[in-house]
Amino acid sequence: MALYVYKFGGTSVGSVERIKSVAEKVKAAYDAGHQLVVVVSAMSGETNRLIGLAKEMQPQPTERELDVLVSTGEQVTVALLSMALHAIDCAACSYTGGQVKILTDSSHTKARILHIEDQRMRSDLNNGKVVVVAGFQGIDEDGNITTLGRGGSDTTAVALAAALKADECHIYTDVDGVYTTDPRVEPKARKLDKITFEEMLEMASQGSKVLQIRSVEFAGKYNVPLRVLSSFTEGAGTLITYEESEVESALISGIAFNRDEAKLTINGVPDRPGIASKILSPIADANIEVDMIIQNIADDATTDFTFTVHRNDYQRAKAALEKTCAELDAKKVTGDDGIVKVSVVGVGMRSHAGIANTMFKALADEGINIKMISTSEIKISVVVEEKYLELAVRTLHSIFKLDQESP
Amino acid sequence: MALYVYKFGGTSVGSVERIKSVAEKVKAAYDAGHQLVVVVSAMSGETNRLIGLAKEMQPQPTERELDVLVSTGEQVTVALLSMALHAIDCAACSYTGGQVKILTDSSHTKARILHIEDQRMRSDLNNGKVVVVAGFQGIDEDGNITTLGRGGSDTTAVALAAALKADECHIYTDVDGVYTTDPRVEPKARKLDKITFEEMLEMASQGSKVLQIRSVEFAGKYNVPLRVLSSFTEGAGTLITYEESEVESALISGIAFNRDEAKLTINGVPDRPGIASKILSPIADANIEVDMIIQNIADDATTDFTFTVHRNDYQRAKAALEKTCAELDAKKVTGDDGIVKVSVVGVGMRSHAGIANTMFKALADEGINIKMISTSEIKISVVVEEKYLELAVRTLHSIFKLDQESP
Repeated sequence: MALYVYKFGGTSVGSVERIKSVAEKVKAAYDAGHQLVVVVSAMSGETNRLIGLAKEMQPQPTERELDVLVSTGEQVTVALLSMALHAIDCAACSYTGGQVKILTDSSHTKARILHIEDQRMRSDLNNGKVVVVAGFQGIDEDGNITTLGRGGSDTTAVALAAALKADECHIYTDVDGVYTTDPRVEPKARKLDKITFEEMLEMASQGSKVLQIRSVEFAGKYNVPLRVLSSFTEGAGTLITYEESEVESALISGIAFNRDEAKLTINGVPDRPGIASKILSPIADANIEVDMIIQNIADDATTDFTFTVHRNDYQRAKAALEKTCAELDAKKVTGDDGIVKVSVVGVGMRSHAGIANTMFKALADEGINIKMISTSEIKISVVVEEKYLELAVRTLHSIFKLDQESP
Repeated sequence: MALYVYKFGGTSVGSVERIKSVAEKVKAAYDAGHQLVVVVSAMSGETNRLIGLAKEMQPQPTERELDVLVSTGEQVTVALLSMALHAIDCAACSYTGGQVKILTDSSHTKARILHIEDQRMRSDLNNGKVVVVAGFQGIDEDGNITTLGRGGSDTTAVALAAALKADECHIYTDVDGVYTTDPRVEPKARKLDKITFEEMLEMASQGSKVLQIRSVEFAGKYNVPLRVLSSFTEGAGTLITYEESEVESALISGIAFNRDEAKLTINGVPDRPGIASKILSPIADANIEVDMIIQNIADDATTDFTFTVHRNDYQRAKAALEKTCAELDAKKVTGDDGIVKVSVVGVGMRSHAGIANTMFKALADEGINIKMISTSEIKISVVVEEKYLELAVRTLHSIFKLDQESP
């Protein structure tokens, strides 16, 4: 008998039929003798419907009231799922975030969990009940309803699993696991049976949208084994753990990529302390997120400074940078909004030299010019021309033998 | 400066535009310097939509989960109304029943209020905020969400007014007050400026659907002055109070009526103790509600026993009664499902003789045959043939001069 936390997202509970099918899945695990806590999101579309109503009331809705409003979405789902479980003779009880209770700080619409009371859930579990909890929401010290922000139901599930010391936290979604890369780009992409938290974090931050980054961080921090699997098909999915040893032999776990990047360079900047801050402050002030940053040391007392932004922010960033260029008496601003970022990710590269060289050579052999490079301990990212995205992903997928099962 | 509790029903908050118009009404009273607690129902249609979803999950939805589900309806409205108030620079804060908190017993879907904590509301009021509270809902001792049953938002409003010792409780609805009778039957019907709690109770129980009986009882018990007025038009509405003196001069306050009645008679029942219970028990067991009951003392050791039921229950009641008739060796069962009940209501009749006589004579003058009579201290009801309903109402409205302002 194990204790599992299951999480079903909005698509998985998007209709009466799907909620019933979730109930069947839960019932099967319950009949197998497991203890179950089930976290659900709002039915797909509901949160956006509510936000639409809010904006009709107030162009910038008060955040406290927005939380009162959108938290009803998950409350509806927990009640309906509990009823569906009762209808098939599975004892169950629903809870809002406030009822559990999931205590958060008071940052409405993006609250952080401070503490979870587990007594009531434990008592229900010990009485043979499935506990159904509204995801995405909590309550602050003064009893105000809070929400954890978009995707926060994953965080709720992981936090409950940590509080209850669950054996595993299962995130049911519309994909059947984590892949070596996006199968739409490389049909040979292979589902991974296991991946480490750190790799998953790099994959997620590099554009693999299977899981919310925050929930992976949280699971890693509290060492909650996380399993990603499909609501709609059978299968064991992908397990995310700390158990490196088994995956060590695989140098690289996957190839991640970000479309829609743009890069900007300011050339001939006088090279003196504080220059990076002078260049990036106006960008930050304009609420533009910067991804990669590279500064080349120059030998004529000037330097070149390059960074990447989301393509949607390109024009605004360029305008800000041109203003800075004039103020700093730098030479010129150049840019390119037709680039993408491709990354190889793997804890194995920590202990193996030559990964970067293999990567660069493979790309060069295909005539792909590398425009920027950035590395971390378990990731190497390159920026290339947009048109090479698919070729670069497939080349790296093949050179690191990701289409083959690890030995 | 007064403290008012306002209540707006589902029709009054049935759309984005109507919620905005409620906000304007609240803002006007706020700007006039009043302290305001506003209780709202779910947007019209929402509760039925949610119950529909529940029934798709489970034919007889678990009542605890039904409360979790339908209570989201009012939660949505309080958030939207607070946003609408913020948008027009009116400080406001929303609360669910659980947050206030409105403590109830644990009878899900029909809970009764046990206690209301007023600290948080008082603190907000003193800080110049409008307090917006979800109607119809509360929380039990264990933190489970409860609902007060259909129409419970009126009860919430009255209970909050009692707890806060509000100056008046305003029930905004789609009619502009309480009328001497239904204006659709008697166009000369006149809006009453005042009516006593007892009269209102009799009017409500006799088919006048302006207010929920329970909220009137509650208001009477805690002596909360209740005002019924329209969300959509201006006007002072009707005030419901204990202040009899001013209305004493009016003998009769109004004419109420119930369509859809049916009567059943069992003739020639052996007249011995316990016979009423023997006749009515099978009716109660079949969940049929009995309205008027009349027993005529007979002189040949048998008695005739007559009662009325809702017309929908006529066939079932008749079948049950025929079974009883055979068991008791009574003579026969007769019935009539083409009858209506018409009542005159007024505290004034307490101290005035002759009201009944005036009533019976007026009906007789119109050739209306009275089939049953039942009286209480402030009400006289008669059962007549269905076709005479309008004529009876208009005749009584005229004979008691209800179309004229009281002197």
